[in-house]
Amino acid sequence: MKILITGGAGFIGSHLCDSLLELNHNIVVVDNLILGKLENINHLIGTNRFRFIEEDLLNLDKLKEIFKENSFEMVYHLAANSDIQKGGKDPEVDYNLTFKTTFNVLQCMKEFNVKKLFFASTSAIYGETSELLTENFGPLNPVSNYGAGKLASEAFISAFSATYNIQTWITRFPNVVGERFTHGVIYDFIHKLKSNPLELTVLGNGEQNKPYLYVKDLIEGILFVYNNSHEQFNVYNLGSYTRTKVKEIAQMVIDEMGLNATINYTGGDRGWVGDVPEFKYDLTKINRLGWEAKTNSNDSVRIAIQKALGE
Amino acid sequence: MKILITGGAGFIGSHLCDSLLELNHNIVVVDNLILGKLENINHLIGTNRFRFIEEDLLNLDKLKEIFKENSFEMVYHLAANSDIQKGGKDPEVDYNLTFKTTFNVLQCMKEFNVKKLFFASTSAIYGETSELLTENFGPLNPVSNYGAGKLASEAFISAFSATYNIQTWITRFPNVVGERFTHGVIYDFIHKLKSNPLELTVLGNGEQNKPYLYVKDLIEGILFVYNNSHEQFNVYNLGSYTRTKVKEIAQMVIDEMGLNATINYTGGDRGWVGDVPEFKYDLTKINRLGWEAKTNSNDSVRIAIQKALGE
Repeated sequence: MKILITGGAGFIGSHLCDSLLELNHNIVVVDNLILGKLENINHLIGTNRFRFIEEDLLNLDKLKEIFKENSFEMVYHLAANSDIQKGGKDPEVDYNLTFKTTFNVLQCMKEFNVKKLFFASTSAIYGETSELLTENFGPLNPVSNYGAGKLASEAFISAFSATYNIQTWITRFPNVVGERFTHGVIYDFIHKLKSNPLELTVLGNGEQNKPYLYVKDLIEGILFVYNNSHEQFNVYNLGSYTRTKVKEIAQMVIDEMGLNATINYTGGDRGWVGDVPEFKYDLTKINRLGWEAKTNSNDSVRIAIQKALGE
Repeated sequence: MKILITGGAGFIGSHLCDSLLELNHNIVVVDNLILGKLENINHLIGTNRFRFIEEDLLNLDKLKEIFKENSFEMVYHLAANSDIQKGGKDPEVDYNLTFKTTFNVLQCMKEFNVKKLFFASTSAIYGETSELLTENFGPLNPVSNYGAGKLASEAFISAFSATYNIQTWITRFPNVVGERFTHGVIYDFIHKLKSNPLELTVLGNGEQNKPYLYVKDLIEGILFVYNNSHEQFNVYNLGSYTRTKVKEIAQMVIDEMGLNATINYTGGDRGWVGDVPEFKYDLTKINRLGWEAKTNSNDSVRIAIQKALGE
């Protein structure tokens, strides 16, 4: 299949490129390299069935040219802002990078008659709730602009799917960790400890408790959903029932770095405005489809730390 | 209170102006007069405590000037596309008029520190389902770009409310009818019968069955919610349990016009792509708050027909 992967030079997108190339698809990556990095896809550039185009999805005219030149059969739309705190400071970030990119992709799919879409969504659309989150959970009251940008994207995807007959697969990610990540709690802790190996300041009280999913499990889950769910509009939570507390992550990073740092907590139940201190996915739907994550949350975190440290 | 009403020259907005002026508020209306009409507010122009500014909310610089000049205490944001079929033909319509207007209003509220927002939402965010629709219903899978634009708006409103501390009242309207309406099934039937009094063609099989709410009841409901619900984020379905079938509306229009037209149905369970053939609100929440519509669905339809015919 000829596939467009938006954000294909990013953390998750580049792993998806690897897997879809292994499955013999033809891949075109469009990425503006603001968050994505050439080093994530350098090993693919120049190989058969892979093409990289440095372009911004916000440039609709250029995007239309790309759709016109290539007869895509499917789009995996992963391009988005992924820094929730940054979006909290400036709503334009998620408006443009998380939502407007989606709308532009949808407009091109409509115009150039592309009938299959995968969309990378997130637990952040559910907002802050201690309830078990099924795919049918409501109300959807996101507390971050990032979550809003993803929910707004899902809204227009739903309407386009129904109105213009686009078959759609949406998976809602938890925290994803592993090779090539560019931010997040593990990344932050490593950087803080590199500049001060004696002391680690943790935002919040360390009790935030969330599932972390290893990126290679996530990619496997995405492809499993695509291959096994055949409705017009398919939505799945991806994750595991296991969770890891921020204070456990802090200790794991310190251990893996061979340090003996003291941990200071800034206090409060969350790291920043828009942070959701804990959430729990109901994974009945994806488990019934026949998939579960191979790696539990703690192991995912540890693998990610080790990979980041180059072990 | 000094209040901005966006879309205040429109069908519903102009009725809201009337009611809020009666309550002695200071009103500024911003409307681009694309859907709104001067004749809806002509009786208010020149009166105390009312100012009309013809401007497009998509012009963010101008909107910021208006916020800067006026120290608004609250915004009633009603500006939106209201023609669902038009939005189905061109997704830019709902992207710009229904969603981008909301985002611009939110950005101005954040910048100019306005802490109270009312938003006019819709049953269309729920998508197509025969289930009883509570405010917490999920999943939210809109089937029209109009519904998507409203859900995308709610998503960013939720995030702005949580992140920048904006107290919010959202009411989700059913079909609203009455004086000053500019489109919709009653409007269409009257115009069709004026051009051909012998025959009325009805899109679909006429069995579409929905609640119609009289605009004056709606305005009363909006103000009731604002006055009686005091959470940070307040969401209510507004409507009545009574419903009216499209074929009943057709007959009422023919009767009120004193005609003896035959009705032809184009067939199919819906009028157009994106139409939702029936929905049922659960009104427990608004009823418990102490409000219910004075006028039932059939009477609302009949009043609207009579007003449209100038009776």
